[in-house]
Amino acid sequence: MAPIKVHGIAMSTATQRVLATLFEKELEFELVPVDMKAGEHKKEPFLSLNPFGQIPAFEDGDLKLFESRAITKYITHQYADKGAELVCGDTKQKAMIGVAIEVEAHQFDPSASKLGWELVVKQMFGMVTDKAVVEEHEAKLATVLDIYEKRLAQSKYLTCDCFTLADLHHLPTIQRLLATEAKKLFDSRPHVSAWIADITARPAWCKVLALQKH
Amino acid sequence: MAPIKVHGIAMSTATQRVLATLFEKELEFELVPVDMKAGEHKKEPFLSLNPFGQIPAFEDGDLKLFESRAITKYITHQYADKGAELVCGDTKQKAMIGVAIEVEAHQFDPSASKLGWELVVKQMFGMVTDKAVVEEHEAKLATVLDIYEKRLAQSKYLTCDCFTLADLHHLPTIQRLLATEAKKLFDSRPHVSAWIADITARPAWCKVLALQKH
Repeated sequence: MAPIKVHGIAMSTATQRVLATLFEKELEFELVPVDMKAGEHKKEPFLSLNPFGQIPAFEDGDLKLFESRAITKYITHQYADKGAELVCGDTKQKAMIGVAIEVEAHQFDPSASKLGWELVVKQMFGMVTDKAVVEEHEAKLATVLDIYEKRLAQSKYLTCDCFTLADLHHLPTIQRLLATEAKKLFDSRPHVSAWIADITARPAWCKVLALQKH
Repeated sequence: MAPIKVHGIAMSTATQRVLATLFEKELEFELVPVDMKAGEHKKEPFLSLNPFGQIPAFEDGDLKLFESRAITKYITHQYADKGAELVCGDTKQKAMIGVAIEVEAHQFDPSASKLGWELVVKQMFGMVTDKAVVEEHEAKLATVLDIYEKRLAQSKYLTCDCFTLADLHHLPTIQRLLATEAKKLFDSRPHVSAWIADITARPAWCKVLALQKH
């Protein structure tokens, strides 16, 4: 039995962030499905894994973690010698990766996730998209992407010419928006487009997408 | 001249997070004031330090960083042998600190910051507090604090019996709420109250508060 367990569902963006890291690191793991419709994530035993009742939760032997970005950092450090490096360079380079990771969480994700909710998830559940919310968050995301466009003119990836955890953390929310009208925000920016084409074609990410189809 | 520069203002919670870390590490630094009223943070040369136009920005020699939580992590690792340890234990312990840091950013801060805005900043600028927003976020923060109360019954600080960066990251938003009606959320939870009394009395934090008075 694999020592690593991910409790979550393959279509959740936060779960995908963890799965992508595990595939990049070429680690064996078990994806333990959580029945969200039955509210399993709001009951024991799930609450013992994450008291906030959110997926994913993660186990590596007797270590239990939650919060997707804390899990990916743990995997990256604990399994530094496996698979892709994900965090490269000296202390200063690592600090720059740290900045890009925080930018994803605090600048990119709030608008990108809101758009994913309005344009994908709500439609999936037969709810009505709020056009004013879409317009507001497309404008906010455009401002963030203008800064990314300038950054990506200087290096292939967000912090350097190596793919890092900072790039990886963007994959789930970007992928969700690729089938929506918000794709125009990426298409109109050549360096952002080239970056997205590159990172979404990574074999590890394709394995995450394949899991969604099951 | 000190090699470390913090560009920000002493009353900004994000700036305070960085200042508290520098004082804990007993490092020399220069606080370079940013004239927010004049919009200095939205113009060059500030935008070269942080293209998102937010304080604080940070310089250590030729290294330029932004995003307060990325800056505090850099300081903690780069100056590991100075002052308070802030990140202790083995890889698993560090992973648990990582979880608590993400919980602050994604569970605690959104409601605590919103309450700080409604109950402190708006009043400071003569704006009207939105009572419905206060009620909504007091309820959300109460749920988070219930989980903290259980956690703090098990150890003195959020992840263990040592004060870490995870505890420190909470200080600015907690301090702002201590003079508001939201203080009742802390007072009604004995372990949370004891934790707050302990962390707000740290000499490093008192130095941050003293800076605000100048």
